Amino acid sequence: MQIALVNKLTEPDKRKQIQAIADNATLLDFWDDRDALIDRGCDCEIAYGRVRPDEAEALRKLRWIHVPWTGVENVLHPVLVDRGVIITNTRGQSGVSMAEHAIGGLLYFARDLPGHAGQNAQAQWRRDTNEFLLEGSRVLVLGTGHIGGVLIPRLAALGVDVVGVNSDGRDVPGCSATYTLNDCASVLPSIDHLIVLLPATPWTRKVVDRDFLQALRPGAVVVNLSRGKVLDHEALLALLDTRHLVGAVLDVSDPEPLPADSPLWQHPRIMITGHKSWRPVKGVQDGFEIFLQNLRCFVDGKPGAMRNLVDPQRGY
Amino acid sequence: MQIALVNKLTEPDKRKQIQAIADNATLLDFWDDRDALIDRGCDCEIAYGRVRPDEAEALRKLRWIHVPWTGVENVLHPVLVDRGVIITNTRGQSGVSMAEHAIGGLLYFARDLPGHAGQNAQAQWRRDTNEFLLEGSRVLVLGTGHIGGVLIPRLAALGVDVVGVNSDGRDVPGCSATYTLNDCASVLPSIDHLIVLLPATPWTRKVVDRDFLQALRPGAVVVNLSRGKVLDHEALLALLDTRHLVGAVLDVSDPEPLPADSPLWQHPRIMITGHKSWRPVKGVQDGFEIFLQNLRCFVDGKPGAMRNLVDPQRGY
Repeated sequence: MQIALVNKLTEPDKRKQIQAIADNATLLDFWDDRDALIDRGCDCEIAYGRVRPDEAEALRKLRWIHVPWTGVENVLHPVLVDRGVIITNTRGQSGVSMAEHAIGGLLYFARDLPGHAGQNAQAQWRRDTNEFLLEGSRVLVLGTGHIGGVLIPRLAALGVDVVGVNSDGRDVPGCSATYTLNDCASVLPSIDHLIVLLPATPWTRKVVDRDFLQALRPGAVVVNLSRGKVLDHEALLALLDTRHLVGAVLDVSDPEPLPADSPLWQHPRIMITGHKSWRPVKGVQDGFEIFLQNLRCFVDGKPGAMRNLVDPQRGY
Repeated sequence: MQIALVNKLTEPDKRKQIQAIADNATLLDFWDDRDALIDRGCDCEIAYGRVRPDEAEALRKLRWIHVPWTGVENVLHPVLVDRGVIITNTRGQSGVSMAEHAIGGLLYFARDLPGHAGQNAQAQWRRDTNEFLLEGSRVLVLGTGHIGGVLIPRLAALGVDVVGVNSDGRDVPGCSATYTLNDCASVLPSIDHLIVLLPATPWTRKVVDRDFLQALRPGAVVVNLSRGKVLDHEALLALLDTRHLVGAVLDVSDPEPLPADSPLWQHPRIMITGHKSWRPVKGVQDGFEIFLQNLRCFVDGKPGAMRNLVDPQRGY
């Protein structure tokens, strides 16, 4: 059995851990020789890391891809889905970091730290800044999966009224109400701040558009920790400039890296955090453990027992 | 009865509220004519706002001072204490703002927002930043009064192990342990981050000194929301520069305003917030309500029934 290592295994010990489970496996490294994947990877049954569409076409024996991150929109190629290739991810490892990032982002603007930072630079004591309370505010959490599950009780403990949006509007502990994307428009005029945790799927593309943002209460902060494709950045900029929005924390962009000439970079009320909200995971080893457990299932011929299986129809 | 208004009453309605309780009172405004206080205020029995030592000497009929803030170190003049002048303050109005400020300050550094801000300015995606988790960390809250009482359960909800320090080491809900200032040295080597809420008294002057800060775990963040006099700022700067401390949020300084030539202003890992952590109070009117209730007690000859009486021996 051949395994394509498309992402780098940072610790040598991980190779041994793989071979302890699949002792007949040949590990082929492509992370430093990506161009060779199409030629040399054609017999691989397993890929660890992202496989591009042309590679997916060429890797005709591929049966399983595991990605050491959460969002899988760049792996869900039709050719793989049609062939029934199993896809697993590493969701569930960064909930605490991302929850703290979201709360830190809201408080960054609630305490007007950008305003204070500007005064620091000019050695000015106590000029015009504008603080507001999170307590008593209403925050919409778009996406109530693992990350939302960590974030929502923390927001509730700060006295925030949390409203959730998920795929079927199911109840979520800690949320005072839940909606689907399709029926949440009615609640937006009561929402003070927005946290975006939605996966990038055909149904979430630019779902946070101008109408969505304009419907929020004036003074809203927007935090996007999931995927840049979910948010209309032109609308975001326009509504920051009218002051309808107070600020935005963008951990993600479209494309990534964000091009140096993007107007998002220099906006005084946008904090870009370069796709680092997932850091630190409590232990990187814990994330790799998911791959190892799934490899055991694969070797044992029990792929249905794998953890973190991705549903290609839902896209996450 | 004469009342010296040393602080400005921002809303005209407040004068009416005072006179509804003390209908024979004469209100003398000094906020825009401070120099007249010694001459024209000598018959005042009540002062609303800060009275300086020479004024305290001159206001021989003064029986009660109310200050529309919390820290009273600048009102506790020996001449007033010796004469048994009653002092009341407005503590208990800003706990939520200050708790959110403290958490926002910790997360500002935990998410390395200063580092990200620097990258924003240079349009750099994802260079060296250093994030860490608050969850699982141990935070020392120096001062477990009203503000600590709001802050501590919020920190606990973030998965922080909170240790408290107060005047007698009494237990505090949400704290895993409590100490007095005198016996807390033993716990410092286990403390990840420090939040200072101590009043300025003779016993707290520079109590957070070099030894105290050096004893904390490497990588500590220091948040001071109470009084600049409590903290040795030279030691703070020295230990930021050795990287023993990761960052500091200073809402207070000594003196205030912080002089423009202070090296604190330009330090890349110090966030100065100009004594605004108390804002917003949930309603300024609520704070004024304390003065009005106490005025009713004073008029009725029941000063012992006043709220927020300051104990001059404790200094808060």
